[in-house]
This record gives sequence, C-alpha cells and structure tokens, in this order.
Amino acid sequence: MNSIRVFAPATVANVACGFDIFGFAVDNPGDQIVLTTSDEPGVRITDIIGDDGRLPREAARNTAGIAIQTYLKHIDRADLGLDIVLHKQMPLGSGLGSSAASAVAGVFAVNELLGRPLPILKLLPFAMEGERIACGSAHADNVGPSLLGGFVVVRSYNPLDVIKIETPATLFCTLVHPDIEVNTKDARFILKNEVSLKNTIIQMGNVAGLIAGLMTPDYDLISRSLVDVIIEPVRAILIPEFNEAKQAALDNGALGCSISGSGPSMFALSRDAQTAEKVGAAMQQAFLAVGITSEAYVSEINRQGPKVMPN
Amino acid sequence: MNSIRVFAPATVANVACGFDIFGFAVDNPGDQIVLTTSDEPGVRITDIIGDDGRLPREAARNTAGIAIQTYLKHIDRADLGLDIVLHKQMPLGSGLGSSAASAVAGVFAVNELLGRPLPILKLLPFAMEGERIACGSAHADNVGPSLLGGFVVVRSYNPLDVIKIETPATLFCTLVHPDIEVNTKDARFILKNEVSLKNTIIQMGNVAGLIAGLMTPDYDLISRSLVDVIIEPVRAILIPEFNEAKQAALDNGALGCSISGSGPSMFALSRDAQTAEKVGAAMQQAFLAVGITSEAYVSEINRQGPKVMPN
Repeated sequence: MNSIRVFAPATVANVACGFDIFGFAVDNPGDQIVLTTSDEPGVRITDIIGDDGRLPREAARNTAGIAIQTYLKHIDRADLGLDIVLHKQMPLGSGLGSSAASAVAGVFAVNELLGRPLPILKLLPFAMEGERIACGSAHADNVGPSLLGGFVVVRSYNPLDVIKIETPATLFCTLVHPDIEVNTKDARFILKNEVSLKNTIIQMGNVAGLIAGLMTPDYDLISRSLVDVIIEPVRAILIPEFNEAKQAALDNGALGCSISGSGPSMFALSRDAQTAEKVGAAMQQAFLAVGITSEAYVSEINRQGPKVMPN
Repeated sequence: MNSIRVFAPATVANVACGFDIFGFAVDNPGDQIVLTTSDEPGVRITDIIGDDGRLPREAARNTAGIAIQTYLKHIDRADLGLDIVLHKQMPLGSGLGSSAASAVAGVFAVNELLGRPLPILKLLPFAMEGERIACGSAHADNVGPSLLGGFVVVRSYNPLDVIKIETPATLFCTLVHPDIEVNTKDARFILKNEVSLKNTIIQMGNVAGLIAGLMTPDYDLISRSLVDVIIEPVRAILIPEFNEAKQAALDNGALGCSISGSGPSMFALSRDAQTAEKVGAAMQQAFLAVGITSEAYVSEINRQGPKVMPN
C-alpha cells in the first residue's frame, strides 16, 4: 500500500485585465489531497474534509476524481485502485480556484505516486477535465497557474498554449473572501458577448503593460496596468461594497485590486508583506462596515505549484 | 545661421495582434529633414523632395511643419525663423508611418538644434500633432516607435503612457509595399465598432504572448503570437493577393506576417537577414504574379530612433 499527500495552490484568474487568459498561484490558501493505493480497482473518494458535505463524493462527478480517472485512462492504468481523501482548505465557489486546486492536487499526486510517467506540463489537460465537471468548461486559467506555479498566460486553447511569466522577486497577494456566494455560471451569464473596439484596445494595452511590468520588473507599470474596463464593471455589481473594498486596498498602498476569478473574492497585489497585510485589514473593514464578514489570506505569489507534503 | 540634418525611421504599427497599441521602428526606410535657422521669423517649408508634389507646402498643414510649430510654441520660441527641407524617402500613404517619420524628424531636429531643451520622451505630444494633421487623430503607435526606437507599447492615451519593450538581439523586418494605395481613413472606416468577447480573448492572449516572446526572448512564442483575429480579416480585403503574399512569407521562414499599419504595405519578421531577404523576394513575387509591382525593404529592428546625420 502506497500513500502520498499533496498540496496544490489556490489561484487568482483573470487578474484584472486578462479575462480567461491570466492567472497566478498563491502560497496560501490551497487544498490537500491524500491518495492511497488499494487492492480494489477503481477510484473512490473515501472522505472530503472541510466542504460541509457540499461536494460530490462520486469520483466521476468530483473535480479531483475525474481528473485522476482521465489521467489513469490515458496512461492505461484504469485498473489501479485508489482511495482519495480530499482536504478542502479554502471556501467553495469563492473565485479562488477551489476546484482547480483539487484537480491539480489529484492529478499531480497520482503522477508522483506512479513515479512520474508524465512530465508536469502534460498533466494540464487532465486537470482541465476537472474544471469541465466543476463549471461546465475546461478552462485553464486556474489549473494552469495551480499546476505550474507563478503567473501564467493561457495564450491559446486551440491548440493549448500555456506560458509561465517571470514575476518580481517580491510580490505579495492579498485575498479577501466575503461571506457571500457568486455562482461561476451566473457570473459568466451576465457578461456581454460583444465588446467595443475602443475597450478592446484599452484592455489590450493593459494586458501588454502588465506582462511588460511583471517581466521588467516595473511595479509602477504593473500598477497602472491592473485595470479592467470589460469584465469588472459588469461583475462588480455582484459583490456588495466592491468599490469601497477596492478603494480601501488602493488607499492602503496596493498596486491594484480587482475581482479574483468570477468572484466574490477580491485580490490585491502589493510590493511587500506589510502592505499586503494592511490592505487585507482595510478591505475586510470595508466589508464589515455593512455587516459582511470575510476571510483574508496574505502570501507571496506561489512559484512552485503543487508539492508533496509529509504524510 | 545654424543647420541640422536628421533621419527618422519608418515604423510598423499594429504588429498583427496589437491594433493601435503596438509599433516598432526599422532601420530602412526613413525620412530625412534639414532645418536651417533664418532671420525671418516663422516656420517655412522651402522644399519637399520625393513626394511628387503631393504633400502640403504650408507649414501649418504639413505633418513636420505643425509638429515643429507646436513644439516652438510650447517652449515659447514661436519667434524663431526656420526653413525646412523635407526628404521623403518612403512611399506616402503606404502604412509605413511616413507622416510619423517626418513629424518625428522635424521635432527631434529642432530640439537638437536648440540644444535639447526637452528630453526625447517629452517630444512625443508634438509629433502626435503631426499625426493629427495627417490622418485626423493624434495616434502614437507610429510616432512612439519612430521617436523612441525599438518596439513600443502605447498602453494608454489618457494619460499618455508609452513603454519601450526589449527585443531579441537579432530580429529582422521585411517590408513590402505593393504599388497600390489605401487611405488610412478608409481603412479605419471599414472596421467594426464591436468585437466579440471570444475574439477579444484570443487577441489578448496573442498580445500577452508577443510581449513575453519579445522580452524572453522566445522566437517560437513570437511566431505563435503574431496572429490578428480582429483587424487583419477585415482589412486584408483591401490588399489584392494579401493571402498569397502572407503565405509566401510564412513558407519562406518568416516568424509571422501581417499588414503594416493600415496597409497596403505588409511586414514580416524573421530571425536573420538571409531569411528576411528570401521572404521579401517571395512576397514581391506573389504580388508580381498578378501584375502588381512593389518595393521591398529589409533591415533590423531600429533601436535608436531618430539620429543626426552629416549635413
């Protein structure tokens, strides 16, 4: 009997200007998964801790389960017996890439358990299958950074082209999850299918500026480029006190602040840990002013992606 | 009596995916201007060579003239007497940034002549005034790279935010100007005011990919990112044999090929001079197959911007 425990990071998708193409991973929070081989063939979820019973226990309907099953089928090991224990260590439906972290943790763990038959980058399509189960489309802007670590561009889906971008040596992320829920499908449904050419040009300028700012690195350019004229104005209405929380972040020194994924979590980037902590406190205070409690997480941009933990 | 001769480079705006935000300068072709101080106050165009009499001789209606006038007014030297001789060394209305090169040459020359009262970057708004006269809007994606050299992102117009991007040590540009004319205003008129969100996402992916490819550098990523799903499909119909010429460029090893500015010139990027020459010959051949003659220019990406020449 073999067993492995793996951590995979939460992620911020979209990152203001990069709807569906940008994402980055953080050191905290993240999910953990424990896989144990079993003599009984097939993939089973034996326990999920921390989801208040809300996630499917059937492997084929669970984001980690389906990712592992698809992977095993691909490497012709569908006969393998595997028991899964999933430790959800972040809120569900929060815009923090919860389903992606579980899928990445699962497929990374089974690949390690089997002696790494596939290189890491090749695991992406299986993790994306987890996303398809969780939210209806096999998007890569959460699983990409969760698997590769760091800041990732999904340049293209057809063919899949995922690029890891250099980030400054110190870059801290504040995540604030207000205790409300936004369904990813709803958040997508309210978006318009058409964008004005004018806004497309503005957004492209910020996309280019953010990549140049990260790679140079140039914190001021990062800050000026963390602007979203297409998605944020539409989705912000789903988050009470969005404007106040964002302003609080900027007033306290954040380089920028926007919605994390499809929300309701918000992210802010800062140059140093102290600012990131201050930003988090101010954002939480903005929500609390209207009676909304929240969780805040502060960590560096994750660089490594998933990792094996002491079991 | 003081005199100065200045060269300013031609430029490729848009660069496939970066409509209105990307541009780069080339070493060849480019315009030259000769400024000579005069006792008679006011800015005069005394001669324009190479335009077949098509450009306005009245300073206030000429791209170089108005740029210089606006500059002199700004530094409170509207009293200065200046005679201008403009050497047009590239085709007009060609999509090679002809008006921008003249405006940049003019404003750079007068600033040098006066002992550089303003730093180079501060000259941009005056050169943009030249663009306003020439094509109705003060765009910066030609004057930006012509003035700064290299590859430039116009991140924002309001406020103006122009960023120079690192490019690979060797990167060659082929320009082919077929002997037909496209009016910049027409080329803009046929564009749609709305873009699908889907195409906006694809374009943003390529914008991010191109910046990352240039800065890394990663020629394959540059190549994969030189794709335009928004503008090129609409404007290509204005250029007979566009598809054939583009295919000829790609078949002969170009990293990518698209319309230069609003056309009808086309540009291709290549890793080395030999490929760039081969690409140019193949593109010219594609036009010639239907009886269209053309000029081809091959040079490195310009790095310096305008420069003072022996007078």
